[in-house]
Amino acid sequence: MSKLSLVATITVKKESVENVKTEMIKLITPTRKEYGCIEYNLHQDNSDPAVFIFYETWESPACLKSHMNTEHFKNYVNATSSLVEKLDVHKMTRIE
Amino acid sequence: MSKLSLVATITVKKESVENVKTEMIKLITPTRKEYGCIEYNLHQDNSDPAVFIFYETWESPACLKSHMNTEHFKNYVNATSSLVEKLDVHKMTRIE
Repeated sequence: MSKLSLVATITVKKESVENVKTEMIKLITPTRKEYGCIEYNLHQDNSDPAVFIFYETWESPACLKSHMNTEHFKNYVNATSSLVEKLDVHKMTRIE
Repeated sequence: MSKLSLVATITVKKESVENVKTEMIKLITPTRKEYGCIEYNLHQDNSDPAVFIFYETWESPACLKSHMNTEHFKNYVNATSSLVEKLDVHKMTRIE
């Protein structure tokens, strides 16, 4: 199976920016230790701090699926799902 | 000055996918040799091949500005501007 790249753009409620950011940061260390996680980078938009982007690279689609079943990912979803206004996910193949 | 991350999502006309992809690939080698270019990764969406995403990291906003003034970038814009349906750019700060 080929590697999978993912860009997730997450727009959160203005009053919840710091709260969600804290929950996102909690995800980084355990996710980077997961099997098949090559890159897991979190960013905040410079012109709109309510917009966050994860840039992720996984060894395979199965590794991403496994990530979404971890306790830390489920905890993040539970803590933030009501605070997210918009979620846009692109699963991609890296050309170069 | 701090590093700058950029995600550019480019939706192209369906009949121009291979043409634009060729022009994008031409950008990679000269851009990676530019001063201040840390990462310059091109991807194609798995569910919609007309969607491309560049993930870029630059030493500073000035380095990105300089990139946009290079001959190879101007040639790319000239070759593809009429073939692009939608361009969405996020300039970001990497949190972790």
